[in-house]
Amino acid sequence: MIINFSERAHNHNWDLDPIVRSLLDTDFYKLLMLQFIWKHFRDTRVTFSLNNRNHKFRLAEMIPREAVIAQLDHVKKLRYRKSEMIWLAGNTFYGTRGIFEPAFLEWLENDFALCDYHLAERDGQFELTFEGSWISVTMWEIYALSILNELKTRAALKGMSEFELDILYARAKTRLWGKIEQLRDVPGLAVADFGTRRRHSFLWQEFVVEAMHSELGAAFTGTSNTFLAYKHDMEAIGTNAHELPMALAAMATNDEELKASQYRILELWQQTYHGALRVMLPDTYGTTQFLQHAPDWVADWTGQRVDSKDPFIAGDEYINWLASRGKDPRTKLLIASDGLDVQTILSLHAYFSGTVAPGVSVRDFRSASDFLDTRKWHLDRRIRFSAGWGTLLTNDFRDCHPRSEGALEPISLVCKLTAANGYPSVKLSDNYEKASGPTELVEHYREVFGLAGISRIPIVV
Amino acid sequence: MIINFSERAHNHNWDLDPIVRSLLDTDFYKLLMLQFIWKHFRDTRVTFSLNNRNHKFRLAEMIPREAVIAQLDHVKKLRYRKSEMIWLAGNTFYGTRGIFEPAFLEWLENDFALCDYHLAERDGQFELTFEGSWISVTMWEIYALSILNELKTRAALKGMSEFELDILYARAKTRLWGKIEQLRDVPGLAVADFGTRRRHSFLWQEFVVEAMHSELGAAFTGTSNTFLAYKHDMEAIGTNAHELPMALAAMATNDEELKASQYRILELWQQTYHGALRVMLPDTYGTTQFLQHAPDWVADWTGQRVDSKDPFIAGDEYINWLASRGKDPRTKLLIASDGLDVQTILSLHAYFSGTVAPGVSVRDFRSASDFLDTRKWHLDRRIRFSAGWGTLLTNDFRDCHPRSEGALEPISLVCKLTAANGYPSVKLSDNYEKASGPTELVEHYREVFGLAGISRIPIVV
Repeated sequence: MIINFSERAHNHNWDLDPIVRSLLDTDFYKLLMLQFIWKHFRDTRVTFSLNNRNHKFRLAEMIPREAVIAQLDHVKKLRYRKSEMIWLAGNTFYGTRGIFEPAFLEWLENDFALCDYHLAERDGQFELTFEGSWISVTMWEIYALSILNELKTRAALKGMSEFELDILYARAKTRLWGKIEQLRDVPGLAVADFGTRRRHSFLWQEFVVEAMHSELGAAFTGTSNTFLAYKHDMEAIGTNAHELPMALAAMATNDEELKASQYRILELWQQTYHGALRVMLPDTYGTTQFLQHAPDWVADWTGQRVDSKDPFIAGDEYINWLASRGKDPRTKLLIASDGLDVQTILSLHAYFSGTVAPGVSVRDFRSASDFLDTRKWHLDRRIRFSAGWGTLLTNDFRDCHPRSEGALEPISLVCKLTAANGYPSVKLSDNYEKASGPTELVEHYREVFGLAGISRIPIVV
Repeated sequence: MIINFSERAHNHNWDLDPIVRSLLDTDFYKLLMLQFIWKHFRDTRVTFSLNNRNHKFRLAEMIPREAVIAQLDHVKKLRYRKSEMIWLAGNTFYGTRGIFEPAFLEWLENDFALCDYHLAERDGQFELTFEGSWISVTMWEIYALSILNELKTRAALKGMSEFELDILYARAKTRLWGKIEQLRDVPGLAVADFGTRRRHSFLWQEFVVEAMHSELGAAFTGTSNTFLAYKHDMEAIGTNAHELPMALAAMATNDEELKASQYRILELWQQTYHGALRVMLPDTYGTTQFLQHAPDWVADWTGQRVDSKDPFIAGDEYINWLASRGKDPRTKLLIASDGLDVQTILSLHAYFSGTVAPGVSVRDFRSASDFLDTRKWHLDRRIRFSAGWGTLLTNDFRDCHPRSEGALEPISLVCKLTAANGYPSVKLSDNYEKASGPTELVEHYREVFGLAGISRIPIVV
């Protein structure tokens, strides 16, 4: 065995093993939203705040503060590389070339900068906030989340021997492969990686995404991670998120404007992208009220992403609503993205894409495991279903620790818009438990939007 | 990433990736037997022949003949290294220093040489035979077996992508870890690695043995592999094998001598090792007749290894026999070594070492899975049970192949003594199916030794 002296010396002298390796290492929709914000809300000032919903993981006691600072500072120093800019300009996204305007790209390359961060500690948790112009704040969300999640991973790995680490990853790979085998050869399946923010680590997400890409073929529709899409010639996936309607709502000056803001943002979006990228996220203030009061043009949108409602119910609701607005649901897209794992993905796929043998209702798929046997149903779409698979794709290390420790469990860490131009922001969502914002304001929003179709579901990941 | 040019160039220029890296890479009992043969049968000429009991694996069609030749030739060129000789001379085996005589070690270092081999092909199988003086033939057994098994592994791995290989080993490690977890913290357990000859590969055996060593503590009593014992400071395990009684039997000039030969060899052995290393292998011509007719001094031996009988039955038989000869079985050793896996190991351990709660017979362990729950019984030895875990420790890749191919299944390959001084040799064993030798001679041996206690059990591995 010849020793690689340079490698060994290098390994012992690392100042920093960076978590975010490129500014492209973010969800693609953040870039689409950044351009949108840059065009329409350049002067809007916002606050984003980190929140760990799992109080039992006392992150500030697990992760050294200095490590957080070092990683955040590293991201602040990153710049877009020339080859990355050329890719953003020249690549085709969702079949469209030139989705990013030259002026935006020029700004991104020369003037884009992340705002300062504010880091404090309270009750064993980090209080991490970002305040500034929306265009300088918004990109922090994904960087901050993937940094904290990977630092939590590193803390959990710290006490393990090389051998234990080997077993840990062997088990995680075995689990991943088991999932891939269940998804392989399922007719008409469409699955994308949505797991950047809560990933175990960058390198593990890369491994997972390459495995899915090589094994599932066309059924793997792409990754939300722009850097991985760029690095491995995959499709970059995603359109927009809650921060847009939330900011507009926060800045509304009366209840009428507040109620209208959820459609106003869609109007602005479709103008900006000339009718492309029309996947909506109707759950910010409740999907049922959103659809009920939506202007007719909303039914022209390509599809919707379901983020906080039971996706079986949300899909049926959307299908019925489309039919009531004279649209053919089979041409529309339904994306589920909340706490999915392989069983739910297969179940949803069968529910929305399959016809069962005579005598068996398609609804039986919801509880039965018949959907796993693709011979029991044949492809007959009610809507184009697609799974946005997040945490349980890129961070499923449950029970993989050789000493059965729980430190590798994924946690429900979020980094959300909390204010726009000084007004606190609110999200209600389809899940009562997921509402965020100051209590009184949440109550006010509930009066304005109502509680139709809102349920209580425990938050998974 | 800095490229290691020398490593890369080296990797592309390998003439041979040797399977046997050291002459110590053999079962320890072969060395003990070699000294024994060197002392008493220096001029005896023998034949050893390879036999693949799994006819469906057509080895000669899977493995290139040139690869077999290259690996066998490589072993022929190996010599004992100075540090290895010093270890053999200075190390303590079974608590005894100086188990190898200086004159033997001198011969081993200066004059030991493997005989020539004869390689042919028939019906898709290799015909590999070794003929010469016993001291030049016997060591081929383990080298030949581990070479053919690893070449079979390499052939199976050849068509796999780097990614598939990664998944394969992840699955095998996950399985291994699952086994280790079942064995961890079981009171009074004793398990040794007996898996050299049928291992997946040398490096995999090394991984497995290191894992067992680090995780099971004192419950892992050692490895039969002398090189691994030397390299990792473990106990080298093993005493003797069938070739000794088989050769003596083959050379017997009448039926009385034939029948006596099975005790004569033990007499010689205990003289040679001054009463140490007295673990017998009574099944060569049937355990029941062996015990029945054994001289009283045989009951002074430390223990027996069970190789072809149901170890539950064989253990009970031995315990009863010891009692009938006035010996306390709790001071004696029972080693099982045939086709073990974790369930059987735990079951046997409980059966021979445990007392069950009132109202539950210890025999219930044979079918129930109660033995897995160590709280259900407490340690109360009937005999000192020890597991010699072979193929399913070092070569359990069943269902690990990502494309579900069976090429990695372990096969029942043996390399046995077939003649001594021109007389064909016979083994009957406790399993009718495992008998070997020319049909007529087998029949004659069955007349001489009888069929008491012989059963038919399918051969596993």
